[in-house]
Amino acid sequence: MKLWNFFQMESQSLKSTFGPAVHVDQMADAPSVIVVCEHATNRVPAHLAGLGLDDDILTRHIAWDPGALPVAKGLAQKMNAVLVHGGISRLVYDCNRPPDAPDAIPVRSEVFEIPGNTDLSDVARAARVDHVYRPFSSMLTEQIGVHRAYLRMMVTVHSFTPVYRDQMRAVQIGILHGDDDRLAHAMMQSIPADLGMEVQLNEPYAASDGVAHTLNHHAVPYGLPNVMIEIRNDLIETADQQSGIALMLANWIAVAEATMTERNTT
Amino acid sequence: MKLWNFFQMESQSLKSTFGPAVHVDQMADAPSVIVVCEHATNRVPAHLAGLGLDDDILTRHIAWDPGALPVAKGLAQKMNAVLVHGGISRLVYDCNRPPDAPDAIPVRSEVFEIPGNTDLSDVARAARVDHVYRPFSSMLTEQIGVHRAYLRMMVTVHSFTPVYRDQMRAVQIGILHGDDDRLAHAMMQSIPADLGMEVQLNEPYAASDGVAHTLNHHAVPYGLPNVMIEIRNDLIETADQQSGIALMLANWIAVAEATMTERNTT
Repeated sequence: MKLWNFFQMESQSLKSTFGPAVHVDQMADAPSVIVVCEHATNRVPAHLAGLGLDDDILTRHIAWDPGALPVAKGLAQKMNAVLVHGGISRLVYDCNRPPDAPDAIPVRSEVFEIPGNTDLSDVARAARVDHVYRPFSSMLTEQIGVHRAYLRMMVTVHSFTPVYRDQMRAVQIGILHGDDDRLAHAMMQSIPADLGMEVQLNEPYAASDGVAHTLNHHAVPYGLPNVMIEIRNDLIETADQQSGIALMLANWIAVAEATMTERNTT
Repeated sequence: MKLWNFFQMESQSLKSTFGPAVHVDQMADAPSVIVVCEHATNRVPAHLAGLGLDDDILTRHIAWDPGALPVAKGLAQKMNAVLVHGGISRLVYDCNRPPDAPDAIPVRSEVFEIPGNTDLSDVARAARVDHVYRPFSSMLTEQIGVHRAYLRMMVTVHSFTPVYRDQMRAVQIGILHGDDDRLAHAMMQSIPADLGMEVQLNEPYAASDGVAHTLNHHAVPYGLPNVMIEIRNDLIETADQQSGIALMLANWIAVAEATMTERNTT
């Protein structure tokens, strides 16, 4: 061993410029829930030079879901979950999209063009898939496989912006489903009486917008009940708000699970 | 479904008081190295009330390996690794010890008695094993299993205190091995000429001190070359020092691997 290995390592060091694509935090030996946060961070690997965007644009919600990771962590801790969260901005690759989706590597997000994503070569596109999507997706497969015997559900946590294309959104919490709507409907039927927030089904997005990839690709094949939760990001700006929402969701989901009826998919 | 599940979740919520026991950061789709940092944090779960120790004692090296996690992260990034790191102080449970080791849950560390570890009930001891050691150990098993086809080595990263029982330690970097000494000897034979640091084999600890558990339990059974690296913690206090050491180690290990001869174990 093996000069070949040495040179292989040297050439592979190009890969590592992407940095960590996925993180796992395991809260218990036998987690009963898998919590997923695809858009946890706005980190853009240095070699991509901010995708040609100004720093103030990279702090906006187009680059990530502000507040979603702390809520996902709090929820995971309260539910004995294993948490899988992304390590790279969705502008580099949106891990809630399959590689053939046109918006997996968006050339435009809202009003912003993304210079670093325009006219990408096949090699550059493949590198994004290999070093962002694949590690993320294979870690989900792995975690579900390892913990399958005692996993009872998947919950994905997202946030959305209060103002979208100059319109104020009324919805505060969105409960979204993909091909399996059992848990989403159970949650809609057990909204906490004292919640005081506007909850809507399949708002502000729905599966037809392509947002059900993680649910359909990773939970549905295992028959694992699953739901995607969207929280308006002005409700989860402070640590107190984040832990309050996490506790509320944990209790709500527990009640929803207890009352969930076995239903077939729509 | 299933009031039973609801109550099961309620009772399981006791578990989650430990919080995350293990974290994984994956740097590439097909990591070639597994980096392990058992003593990454001094976090003591709140319900353990600091094990009865003052906060200033919990910031000392007896509770964790200061500087080790940033070095491990830098090393992992440079080597396309998957990094597995602990989420709980080694005073709660030392993940580099098997459950039957007397110092897995130490009642004393250096001059400090650990009140929260004295006269532990069997139930409390089992909870530490179940919620700290088992998630950590099973995650290592899982990561090695999943990535086995392309994993080439395991590197564990630790730090040690410059002053131990009032003696200044001369060693600055320790290269330690367990039952498989191939990579440790290769590193000793390829110490960078310009390093300017005192490197010693199996110092300041050795396998006979019980520190080779992770290496022997997780790497040796797979024939995976492995080494434990101990860094004197005054050398990795700043971010610049940490990234400098990480880069130096990545290059050193690459050279060592390239020149490593197949040797049997001593």
